[in-house]
Amino acid sequence: MKFSPLLSELIRTLKYLPGVGQKTAQRMAFQLLERNRDGGQELASALHNAMEHVQHCQQCRNFTESELCDICASPKRQQQGILCIVETPQDVMAIEQTAEFKGLYFVLMGHLSPIDGIGPADIGLDNLAELLDKHQIQEVILATNPTVEGEATAHYIAQMCRSRDIKASRIAHGVPVGGELEYLDGSTLMHAFSGRREL
Amino acid sequence: MKFSPLLSELIRTLKYLPGVGQKTAQRMAFQLLERNRDGGQELASALHNAMEHVQHCQQCRNFTESELCDICASPKRQQQGILCIVETPQDVMAIEQTAEFKGLYFVLMGHLSPIDGIGPADIGLDNLAELLDKHQIQEVILATNPTVEGEATAHYIAQMCRSRDIKASRIAHGVPVGGELEYLDGSTLMHAFSGRREL
Repeated sequence: MKFSPLLSELIRTLKYLPGVGQKTAQRMAFQLLERNRDGGQELASALHNAMEHVQHCQQCRNFTESELCDICASPKRQQQGILCIVETPQDVMAIEQTAEFKGLYFVLMGHLSPIDGIGPADIGLDNLAELLDKHQIQEVILATNPTVEGEATAHYIAQMCRSRDIKASRIAHGVPVGGELEYLDGSTLMHAFSGRREL
Repeated sequence: MKFSPLLSELIRTLKYLPGVGQKTAQRMAFQLLERNRDGGQELASALHNAMEHVQHCQQCRNFTESELCDICASPKRQQQGILCIVETPQDVMAIEQTAEFKGLYFVLMGHLSPIDGIGPADIGLDNLAELLDKHQIQEVILATNPTVEGEATAHYIAQMCRSRDIKASRIAHGVPVGGELEYLDGSTLMHAFSGRREL
């Protein structure tokens, strides 16, 4: 016996969600059907609207349904002349939650990875070049992840900045606040030592 | 900074799914937007259709979009005269996967739980009474979960059967096949001993 056609279809499509397999999809489907049909309908229309209308910001490539996202559209942030380069929209959220950085962002939506066929155009570096040429950017902060690909991407963008006489800086790597030296990997510790600052 | 309105709405509604919190919802939203917009649209319409059209089977209370589910509609299964009572549609699936049981089902969609205000009417026992009165049922197999509430529900239904002179049986509790005695709880072991069969 199989589930009824509509139910099978719902379970099949729920598996498109990352981390959702057959059993989880069944649990989700039954939970919505038994307890929260209105919620299910809300989710259906939110999904439909988002898939239909959310696009990339024409300046920073972050997700937005407008032409420019709220950050790029803010004159205050444009005046700062600082651009922070991150890999994903989630990174923008993480940085925004600290409420310390007041400049603009550029979201790569990935990182350079020649082995996967991801080149400069795929992570929007031509858009970035345009942005650097057009706007008065004094400093570019490279906040890509400290992985091999993230570092390579950071170096590539640093070169782009150098050729335009724009200062490029990399976020500090070191001991996380609240972390303990004892449990840190050697590579991070090495970074912490080489990046030491005078007190 | 918050996500754009459509994106926030999508993340908020994804949290209606069981086991999905803020971070998971973000990951799901971005995954669909970046990699699988068509899948997202399919999911949206599957959700919409299921929430709109999936109802309970008028006989067994399982989920279906028809008046009767496939199992209840099958004359072959009706002729068997056996009715298996389970708590959830997932239990029906689990039993169907063994392909051993050929009778009808009745899905309680829960269990008796006076403390939560769940009485006989809430788990459809009036429908069950009607089914027992109308159809030629010779045996009722009680396959509710071996929890306090499941046992209480089984006893309640057994009484209903007794008053109608229908045989009621409870599925066996004991050592799971492939399990090891060493790791079994005492209560299950006790059931295994008291339910022993001659070889």
